[in-house]
Amino acid sequence: MKKEIIVKKFGGSSLANIARIKAIAKRILESKTKYNDVVVVVSALGDTTDELEAMAFNISKNPPDREMDMLMSTGEQISCALLAMAIKALGHDAISFTGAQVGIKTDKSHTKARIETIDANCIRQAFKNGLIVIVAGFQGATHSNEITTLGRGGSDLTAVALAITLKAEVCEIYTDVNGIYTTDPRLLKDARKIKTISFDEMLEMASLGAQVMQARSIEVAKRFNLPIHVRSSFSKEEGTMIVKNTTKLEEIAVRGITSNKSEAKITICAVPDQPGIAAQIFNEISKAGVNVDIIVQNISHTRHTDISFTVPMKDLTKAIKAANKIAKKINAGSVSQDKDVARISIVGSGMRSHQGIAAKMFQTLAKNKINIDMIATSEISISCIIEQNTTDKAVKALHKAFELQKK
Amino acid sequence: MKKEIIVKKFGGSSLANIARIKAIAKRILESKTKYNDVVVVVSALGDTTDELEAMAFNISKNPPDREMDMLMSTGEQISCALLAMAIKALGHDAISFTGAQVGIKTDKSHTKARIETIDANCIRQAFKNGLIVIVAGFQGATHSNEITTLGRGGSDLTAVALAITLKAEVCEIYTDVNGIYTTDPRLLKDARKIKTISFDEMLEMASLGAQVMQARSIEVAKRFNLPIHVRSSFSKEEGTMIVKNTTKLEEIAVRGITSNKSEAKITICAVPDQPGIAAQIFNEISKAGVNVDIIVQNISHTRHTDISFTVPMKDLTKAIKAANKIAKKINAGSVSQDKDVARISIVGSGMRSHQGIAAKMFQTLAKNKINIDMIATSEISISCIIEQNTTDKAVKALHKAFELQKK
Repeated sequence: MKKEIIVKKFGGSSLANIARIKAIAKRILESKTKYNDVVVVVSALGDTTDELEAMAFNISKNPPDREMDMLMSTGEQISCALLAMAIKALGHDAISFTGAQVGIKTDKSHTKARIETIDANCIRQAFKNGLIVIVAGFQGATHSNEITTLGRGGSDLTAVALAITLKAEVCEIYTDVNGIYTTDPRLLKDARKIKTISFDEMLEMASLGAQVMQARSIEVAKRFNLPIHVRSSFSKEEGTMIVKNTTKLEEIAVRGITSNKSEAKITICAVPDQPGIAAQIFNEISKAGVNVDIIVQNISHTRHTDISFTVPMKDLTKAIKAANKIAKKINAGSVSQDKDVARISIVGSGMRSHQGIAAKMFQTLAKNKINIDMIATSEISISCIIEQNTTDKAVKALHKAFELQKK
Repeated sequence: MKKEIIVKKFGGSSLANIARIKAIAKRILESKTKYNDVVVVVSALGDTTDELEAMAFNISKNPPDREMDMLMSTGEQISCALLAMAIKALGHDAISFTGAQVGIKTDKSHTKARIETIDANCIRQAFKNGLIVIVAGFQGATHSNEITTLGRGGSDLTAVALAITLKAEVCEIYTDVNGIYTTDPRLLKDARKIKTISFDEMLEMASLGAQVMQARSIEVAKRFNLPIHVRSSFSKEEGTMIVKNTTKLEEIAVRGITSNKSEAKITICAVPDQPGIAAQIFNEISKAGVNVDIIVQNISHTRHTDISFTVPMKDLTKAIKAANKIAKKINAGSVSQDKDVARISIVGSGMRSHQGIAAKMFQTLAKNKINIDMIATSEISISCIIEQNTTDKAVKALHKAFELQKK
C-alpha cells in the first residue's frame, strides 16, 4: 500500500543546470509510486542567489532588506516553475507555488523572517487534483502581503514546516553529500556515514560546523517530531535519518566530530571580579549584533579575572570595538584577539551516560601534543579551542580514539 | 507649482546593466522636482526575458502557460527591486511592488492575460509616505492569486493602465529611440521625428510595423484619453506626444510611412463566386489561429474569383494547411503562396480631408517602377503589397513625395 505524503527538498547544487533539473524531475516521479502525494521544495538554481546578491551590492552598499527580499525570492520562483515544467514534460501533472501563494505567513523581519502560520490550502486542493506540488523555498509573505525571506538555508525550513503542516511521514533533504558523517569526509578519509542520529546530536553537529542542514529547521523538526532523511540527489543510496531518539538503536557514546575554523578568540584581561560584570560585558557585545559562542572565565586568585570568548571571524572588528568600549567602562585591562584558533567538538547523546569521555578527549589531544586553549561542555558535546594548524591532526586522532571508523 | 502624478515606463534596454539602472534612478529623482508623485513601471533587465524563455524551452517543448507566467514574471520583479535599491542609494525613499501586490487583477488567460481591475491602494499609501513607487510591468494575478503575464510588450500596458487608474497627467514611455519618426530612421536618413501624433495614427503606425509601442496600450490610452510621451532613456530631448487630436496643431495629410517585411501572401484561385464563401474561408483560417491582415478579392467576370490575403510569415504553414482544406471543401482551384512580398503604408488622419493622397501614392510608386500587387485602405492609411526588394526604394520615394523630411 502507498504511504500518504512525502516532502522533498532539493538544494541549489541539485538544480545547477537543465540536465540536473530533468534528472530530479524523473526522481520525483519515481517517488509518486511509493507515496500518494508529493511536495517538492526547491532552492534557487546553482549560483543564482550569489548572482542576485552581487547585483544588489553593485547598486547599493546597503540595499534595503525589503527590496533584498523582493529580489532574492525570484531565485526560488524560477526553479519551481522550471521543475514543474520538467515534470509535466515527463507526462505527469504538476503545479508550482510561491511561498506567498502557499500561505506561508511570516513576521515582518525582512531577510530573516520567522514563519507564523501556514495555510497550505492550495496544496491540499492540488493533491485532490492529483498534482505533484512544487514550492519555492526560502520565502513567505507578511499579513500585508509583503514578500519576505527566511534567511540562508531557509528552504530547509520551508520543507520542514510544510511537512509538519501536511502531516507528512518524512521530510527528505537532498544535498550533494550522502548523509551526515562521523566527521567531514573531505578532511578524513575514514569518516563513516551515520545511519541514524538524534535531533539533539544533529543540532550540535549543525551549529558546530557540519553545514549539511540549517539548525533552525532541525529545532522545528524536533519540536514536532518529524523524521528527516538527509541524502544525496546524485545517488539512490540511503542517507542519514534524523529522529527523536536513537539510544535504543545504537549504544554509541560519541556520534561525530566537528571542527570550525571560522571563529576568533577575544580576551579581556584584568576584569574586576565582581557580580554583574559578565552580564555587562556580554550585553555590550550583543548590542553590537555579535553572537558569542564559547565563553571562559578563568579562576581568579586576585580581585581580577580574565574573560575569553569566541566570535564569528566576520564579526571580529565589531566585537573588538565593543569589547574595548566596555573594558574602558568597567576599568578592565587590555583587550587582545587571536585569529589562529579552531574549535573542535565531539558530539553524542551517549556521552550523558558514559564515563570518562571528556578525559579521553583531553588525553588524546595531549598525547598528540595539541594544546587546549579553552574548554566548553554541553550535555551532549565537548568542545575545545585549539591552535588552528593542529585541527586536522586533532580530528584524526579523536576519530580513531572513539572508534568512529567502525560500524 | 508641482504637477500631480506622472507614470514612467522603462524598457529592458534602458535597464541593461548596473550603470544604466543607476542613471535611470538619477533621472527618476529629477522628475520628483516637477511632480508630487512618481510611479515607475519596469520591464525585465536587458535580455532576461529571452534567457528565461530559452531555459523553459530547453526543459520542455511545450511548457505549460501557467508555469511560463511563474517563470517570466520574475524578470520584472528583479528589475523593480534593483531600481528601488538604486533610488534609495541616492537618498530618496522608494518601494517596489509586483503586479499582484499592486492589485492588477486579470482574467485567467495565462501568457496573454487581460487586465480586469486595478486597486492600486498600496501605491496611494506609498504616495502618502512620500515614496517613489516602482512597479514590475507585464504582470498581474487572477482573483485566485495565480500569477499571470500580459503578453510581450505588456509593460506598456501596465504603465498606461496604472496612469489611468491613478489619474496621472501623462504616461512617459522610455525607449531606445527619440520618439516616433516619419519612417524608420535606420532605413532612411531623412526620417524626421514627429512632435505630435494622434492615437489613431499611432495605432496604424504601431500595427503596421513601427515597433516602438504595443498597440493594445495605445487603444487603452485612446479610450481614456491619456496623453503618452514616447521618448529616449538616453537623452533629455523631448520625444513624441501621442494625444487625442492633432489636426488643429498640424495640418498634415500624411504623418508617416511604415513598411513590414514579415508577411506572406496566399492566393486561393477560382473560388466559386457565391455569397458566404469569403466568410467560410476566413472562418477556417481564423480557426487555425492565424490573424489575416490585408484581404483582396479580385473582380470576377466569370462565376469564379481569386481571393488573396496576407498572413504573418511565422503562421504561413498553418495558414496554407487551412487554405488547402477549405479550398477543397468549397471546390476552389489551387492555393499558392508568395513570401517575396512587403507591405508599405502611408498613415495620417489628415488624409480623410485631403484629396488625391491615394493617387499620389500610386503615381509615386509607378514613377519608380514599383509594381503594386494588392491595395488596402482604411480611413487613415493606405497600404500596398509590393515586391520585397523594392521596399527601401518605395519608402524613400514616398517620404520625399509627401515632403515628410520638412518640419
